Amino acid sequence: MKCGKHVTLLALFCVAGSAPIVAQSPPPPPANEFMTEFVIANRILADQGIIADGFGHLSARSPTDTNRFYMSRARAAGMVTVDDVMEFDASGQPLDQRGRRLFSERFLHAEIYKARPEVNSVVHSHAPTLLPFGITGTPLRPVAHMAGFLVRAAPVFEIREAGGNETDMLVSTPELGAALAKTLGQAPIILMRGHGFNTVGTSVKQAVSRAIYAEVNARILMEALKMGNVVYLNESEAAKIAKITNASMDRSWEIWKFKALANAPKL
Amino acid sequence: MKCGKHVTLLALFCVAGSAPIVAQSPPPPPANEFMTEFVIANRILADQGIIADGFGHLSARSPTDTNRFYMSRARAAGMVTVDDVMEFDASGQPLDQRGRRLFSERFLHAEIYKARPEVNSVVHSHAPTLLPFGITGTPLRPVAHMAGFLVRAAPVFEIREAGGNETDMLVSTPELGAALAKTLGQAPIILMRGHGFNTVGTSVKQAVSRAIYAEVNARILMEALKMGNVVYLNESEAAKIAKITNASMDRSWEIWKFKALANAPKL
Amino acid sequence: MKCGKHVTLLALFCVAGSAPIVAQSPPPPPANEFMTEFVIANRILADQGIIADGFGHLSARSPTDTNRFYMSRARAAGMVTVDDVMEFDASGQPLDQRGRRLFSERFLHAEIYKARPEVNSVVHSHAPTLLPFGITGTPLRPVAHMAGFLVRAAPVFEIREAGGNETDMLVSTPELGAALAKTLGQAPIILMRGHGFNTVGTSVKQAVSRAIYAEVNARILMEALKMGNVVYLNESEAAKIAKITNASMDRSWEIWKFKALANAPKL
Amino acid sequence: MKCGKHVTLLALFCVAGSAPIVAQSPPPPPANEFMTEFVIANRILADQGIIADGFGHLSARSPTDTNRFYMSRARAAGMVTVDDVMEFDASGQPLDQRGRRLFSERFLHAEIYKARPEVNSVVHSHAPTLLPFGITGTPLRPVAHMAGFLVRAAPVFEIREAGGNETDMLVSTPELGAALAKTLGQAPIILMRGHGFNTVGTSVKQAVSRAIYAEVNARILMEALKMGNVVYLNESEAAKIAKITNASMDRSWEIWKFKALANAPKL
Repeated sequence: MKCGKHVTLLALFCVAGSAPIVAQSPPPPPANEFMTEFVIANRILADQGIIADGFGHLSARSPTDTNRFYMSRARAAGMVTVDDVMEFDASGQPLDQRGRRLFSERFLHAEIYKARPEVNSVVHSHAPTLLPFGITGTPLRPVAHMAGFLVRAAPVFEIREAGGNETDMLVSTPELGAALAKTLGQAPIILMRGHGFNTVGTSVKQAVSRAIYAEVNARILMEALKMGNVVYLNESEAAKIAKITNASMDRSWEIWKFKALANAPKL
Repeated sequence: MKCGKHVTLLALFCVAGSAPIVAQSPPPPPANEFMTEFVIANRILADQGIIADGFGHLSARSPTDTNRFYMSRARAAGMVTVDDVMEFDASGQPLDQRGRRLFSERFLHAEIYKARPEVNSVVHSHAPTLLPFGITGTPLRPVAHMAGFLVRAAPVFEIREAGGNETDMLVSTPELGAALAKTLGQAPIILMRGHGFNTVGTSVKQAVSRAIYAEVNARILMEALKMGNVVYLNESEAAKIAKITNASMDRSWEIWKFKALANAPKL
Repeated sequence: MKCGKHVTLLALFCVAGSAPIVAQSPPPPPANEFMTEFVIANRILADQGIIADGFGHLSARSPTDTNRFYMSRARAAGMVTVDDVMEFDASGQPLDQRGRRLFSERFLHAEIYKARPEVNSVVHSHAPTLLPFGITGTPLRPVAHMAGFLVRAAPVFEIREAGGNETDMLVSTPELGAALAKTLGQAPIILMRGHGFNTVGTSVKQAVSRAIYAEVNARILMEALKMGNVVYLNESEAAKIAKITNASMDRSWEIWKFKALANAPKL
Repeated sequence: MKCGKHVTLLALFCVAGSAPIVAQSPPPPPANEFMTEFVIANRILADQGIIADGFGHLSARSPTDTNRFYMSRARAAGMVTVDDVMEFDASGQPLDQRGRRLFSERFLHAEIYKARPEVNSVVHSHAPTLLPFGITGTPLRPVAHMAGFLVRAAPVFEIREAGGNETDMLVSTPELGAALAKTLGQAPIILMRGHGFNTVGTSVKQAVSRAIYAEVNARILMEALKMGNVVYLNESEAAKIAKITNASMDRSWEIWKFKALANAPKL
């Protein structure tokens, strides 16, 4: 085996006989482990009620090529297996479609990856408790410390502004994806009026956990608004706690994973 | 084998020795598969909380005789097996009752099939989150794109108008069934005041998925109405997305089925 | 074997050699079946969220002695086995305590059986969705046809009226039990302010199913009241549908039982 | 074997040959049983939705040294095993850290144990239904008799008063822990604005059951407040019923434990 010339995933398996390779960023996890975790993340989104049906999807930027990303073929997150995962290029086109049906909204993922180089994962969800905020314009702001990442009110994507009054509501073109990415700006979450929401993260764990705690925060805020004057986290509180909870998210991941894999289809 | 001239579904089954048959509509699925899917649909309605108890029912127009339809004997949807399924004529009478108890409201199914030739399946449900709309007259309109099929506010059947103030609330005669079918008109769903709702579809999957997403939409709208001004889908948005989601419903069906058959009685 | 003289449970096993016995009411089920169904009813109450914890209880008048009734020893309904069931006399005293802890509120059962000869079963529940009605005095009236048995607003037992302002909230004496039975009057359900509710029935199935559908009706009414003007069932509608649903309750019982016995402790 | 000199845990195993030992309080349970019950309590908190994720924690004062307490390493309550439990000194420092990650908020436990000698267990939870009360300042008062222990409105810890406007929201220093303990005073529960709540008890069972019934009371009160004038338990009612329910809590514990250990990780 000759090593050292191909700085790719293979480098990981390249041990003997040549000088060590110095990577500019931490080496990606081995392909198998990365894929397994990606599939588990799909299952967690299903089990936690973030993607309860066959709509909604998770993507992850390729750890070996920043111009590519992974998503499953068009399938319910709770059913996704390693074999279902496909690779897409920066424009949202599959490298090898293999005759499979694809999520038409993969362009919102593609355009967010283009606009936000630090983002490595995107969740798209229709969780019912988030919808009322986008529908009424009620600001989704952080009231629970676990949702500190919200910091400020989540932006709302009104597709009528980008696509007019006669769209099919879907972000299924590069143009609409770019418009959504523009509204997202530097935020960690964006609400889509009458449709759902997206979270982004520097890792799959961050994007997924943000989706889960955004949903918890929505439930809490929904009831607090009915009770009286709401005290929100201020920006300092929100930013500080967000950093800390993010660093400890493995603790939630462990139990989410345990629950998601109980009585579930094979990975 | 000489095939290849008639590009229809039949071509698939085109084997040897006779002139090809031209069907006016695609041939029905084999009886066994149809029945199995029908029973699974019952289980899905139970598992998704649309028919949680022994009341509520699903029917399907016979794929081989448009004047007949299938329904289970009077039994909880979550318990229905293939053996429980019975065939009814256009007036709602069983072809062979075999001494079994029947749902007294089978006439609402019968009358809808009469009035709506394109309808091939009907769901009757008591899901609690839909009831408040019929009870208060609050319009059930689409706010979530997955419920685009609602398009306009669901009509409400007030049994007092058709049957007076002293009914038993049940649509258990052909006359009441016809009155309900008239109020339904060309809509995909009808609310029944103080009772429940029905959805219809060109297929079992469509009727069932409409019931599930109507319920989701009701939950979302219920909370949105408490928050402030609600932006509904407009007619163009609703109609367009409804067509798309309908075509992709197999994706939800797969996970609904998986969940419904876990820890369930034998089919 | 000599038959015909003892019109009791034994009559059921009396077959040969004498004129048939005409009973004034249907003969009670065999003891074993009766007990098994009673235990299953306990499990159903647990599984349906009517008695979620170790408080709340079910009783049944003895089918062989109208002056006695059955209740489990003080144990969570979801854990009750046949061996836990004990027999009590008309005053609420156990025939044979066997050193076991008893529910202190068995007197509410005893006094209801005294006051209502036609009642053969009583449920006592703390289900959270019922509590707000008793706490605020908002009338619990029927809005869903499955709760037609409510007919009129449920009476509310305010223990301060019967026991003053310094009670421990429990109906743990014959006097308080009698006061509750008086407030109950001829109603099928009574709310207890800040505590819970009781349903009664001519059978275990009726008392249990009334508890389940009272809870469903409470959830529906709770949301309807937030939406606007509520149309309640009128007395005629409520009374008529109540009779019909009661006669069909085996259909719900079958699936409730199936769910309650899945992953449950041994009977 | 020589007994009688060491009034410690060993006394339990001291049987033969000497005068009986009179302990000032009941002897603690054997170490193994104590630890098993502590782990089960963690699982119950997870299963009952009080600690649904990897945040939130339970502690117990050491039965053999009142200056020490037990807590798991930083891990989801639903995953905690006996091996995860660690011992901490009065200042919140681990006796033997073994390189493990610790809950940064262990200081709120430590300071409560210092301030409240009778307290032997503390729960820290983020249950979403409690949050709206702390966020809006709506008094959490007892409306359900099972939450009689509330007696008076729960105090609210506003971290801005103790730590200023730029904290990270966490009670992660002895100073903040002491401030929280001061606000708690002699109460059984304290709400933390934008964060969660803590309950305390003289035993693990009491602290855990208080957390569970505080959550139930919050759900009931939340809806009652929307309906109209709320009748709260008065102080006499609340205090009396609290004493009784506490003495019967084993009944709830049995079913909570059964549910928590079904489909759970090994203890």
